[in-house]
Amino acid sequence: MNESIGGYLAGRVDLREQLQHAERPIMLAVAGDSGSGKTTYTHGIRRLIGNDMVTSIALDGYHLEDRAQRRISGRLPLDPSANNLELMHQHLSALRRGEAVEIPIYNHSTGCFDSPQIVRPAPVVVVEGLHALYDQNLPLFDFTLFVDSDRDVKWRWKFERDVYFRGHNPSELENEIQRRDDAYKQWIDFQKTSADVVIKIHDSHLSALAHQHFDGSLPENCYHMEIIVSPTDLPLPALNLPVNLNGLTQLDAQPFMLASVPSSYWGRKVNVIHVDGIMPSEAMQRLEDEIMELTGISAEVERRSLIEASQNSTMRFTQSLVAWPFLGRIWSLLAESHPDGNEEFDI
Amino acid sequence: MNESIGGYLAGRVDLREQLQHAERPIMLAVAGDSGSGKTTYTHGIRRLIGNDMVTSIALDGYHLEDRAQRRISGRLPLDPSANNLELMHQHLSALRRGEAVEIPIYNHSTGCFDSPQIVRPAPVVVVEGLHALYDQNLPLFDFTLFVDSDRDVKWRWKFERDVYFRGHNPSELENEIQRRDDAYKQWIDFQKTSADVVIKIHDSHLSALAHQHFDGSLPENCYHMEIIVSPTDLPLPALNLPVNLNGLTQLDAQPFMLASVPSSYWGRKVNVIHVDGIMPSEAMQRLEDEIMELTGISAEVERRSLIEASQNSTMRFTQSLVAWPFLGRIWSLLAESHPDGNEEFDI
Repeated sequence: MNESIGGYLAGRVDLREQLQHAERPIMLAVAGDSGSGKTTYTHGIRRLIGNDMVTSIALDGYHLEDRAQRRISGRLPLDPSANNLELMHQHLSALRRGEAVEIPIYNHSTGCFDSPQIVRPAPVVVVEGLHALYDQNLPLFDFTLFVDSDRDVKWRWKFERDVYFRGHNPSELENEIQRRDDAYKQWIDFQKTSADVVIKIHDSHLSALAHQHFDGSLPENCYHMEIIVSPTDLPLPALNLPVNLNGLTQLDAQPFMLASVPSSYWGRKVNVIHVDGIMPSEAMQRLEDEIMELTGISAEVERRSLIEASQNSTMRFTQSLVAWPFLGRIWSLLAESHPDGNEEFDI
Repeated sequence: MNESIGGYLAGRVDLREQLQHAERPIMLAVAGDSGSGKTTYTHGIRRLIGNDMVTSIALDGYHLEDRAQRRISGRLPLDPSANNLELMHQHLSALRRGEAVEIPIYNHSTGCFDSPQIVRPAPVVVVEGLHALYDQNLPLFDFTLFVDSDRDVKWRWKFERDVYFRGHNPSELENEIQRRDDAYKQWIDFQKTSADVVIKIHDSHLSALAHQHFDGSLPENCYHMEIIVSPTDLPLPALNLPVNLNGLTQLDAQPFMLASVPSSYWGRKVNVIHVDGIMPSEAMQRLEDEIMELTGISAEVERRSLIEASQNSTMRFTQSLVAWPFLGRIWSLLAESHPDGNEEFDI
């Protein structure tokens, strides 16, 4: 199988076109706490294979209780028994078969359920939720992610989002978060042991690499991210991030750190990729251009991405680091289904 | 001045040819303890502008006493009063004027002085010694380096070199090293406060970036290096190190770390560049090819460099990181002397 991917890619097969003719959607799942940035980390996949190719599903709709009911029951949405996991599983199975599904919708602003929505799966279905990687769901997914933010970072995010944008009461929120920590440990955290990629988010650690004092400036949301990847032996093409060494010796040099360390993680062999600080946006653009050439994304979408270039480039880098093994998985599935690169995608 | 360098480089001036027609040699000095690897860090300059362009001078010859005399006097070569600093200064001044000099030679194997040697300065003169950056010498140099190895690393190196290759007695050596530490602090260490580039060498720190346990393998001489550079606003060309991100997700991924942190160092604004682990040798080759294209080095020399490619690529990377600001300094001097890029080099 592995040998065929090289040939497959060498034939410059248009990934988007192949995905459009696939028999069933490619299923990607992202688990992690609410407020941990699950959506953020799948943006790269949208950008790199095209927004039109991706349907996103939030699993919050499968909560059994709305906010008012939870106040009475005292149960947390983290508790699996407070979720309709059976319906969730049925719906995910249907989506995998390519069927449209009417999914329930939870509204985080109102704390109530909105009307259900009919979802027709695009060639790639991204499933985001607290319990996405529960055992019964795992066979449905082609690729799995777990977002594992530090407690400090998570709390800060949740505060910002829930207090400023969702109008929650701060002290009530603090009590709820305290209570949630045990629940998180019991019901959510363990899912990372089976994820293909785990993203750990810490506060920036760059000042520890300075002398005397750190003299750079970091953007507000600058984190030290670890991307823990199950390494593959798929012969994927080289993907070059051009690091401008001259920039390192210039007055306006930006602080950054990049590292890769073979390691063990829950008994598995992994590579831990560390990213911190500010990745140069020109380098990011060139990296994404390379990926887009491989995915066959159109020039129009590429322009959109240029507009996004002003965004936090380290986040974009992390998104690309997450998207790349996912694309590798897709290529591998495509190559498995038609090793000579000429047949229909049939997995 | 700065604007002219861009134009100067855009005219693709052959650096080697310009240097050959220069009025006086470019003077580079490297200070640091004996056994700290001073010679190693100037290898990159030899490789990137050509061995034939560089004359190296070791300042050990200016010791006033040989090993036998030191045993009696109890003085250390680190003590400036045990060195003929006045003669050293005269000789360095003559070399800077482009004159041939008969320099004294100390033989580390025998512990005695060999016959003096006549040195005719090549277009680049590299001066290596314990006291190279003493105040009176500083005006003679166009660029200065200080090699600052961790005590542990230095001891290990000195042991290996002096015991295995120079046949010293291990326990005697240990006593001498202990005694040398104070002397080093008093007479040598302070020179780093005025160096353009300081190279700090620590034991590898990569395993601290692993999870559970570090699962990579590091070559024997793998260090965590910090290259502390006074940043420049010279408009030097971009210099891209292609980091293969696909490699990071592969089973055979090599451990490495690269970081750049704006910082303070002895009251100066610097960039601290951290390098650890194994840099991919293909990336190193492409980086050096880029530099060589800018220096105008011949294809013949380039082939020699390919043979060296099997060497420790992280060391080569550090060598390039040291060579690059030095090349920047040369370009700046050349551009100063003939801003339109047509006149003779005249500084």
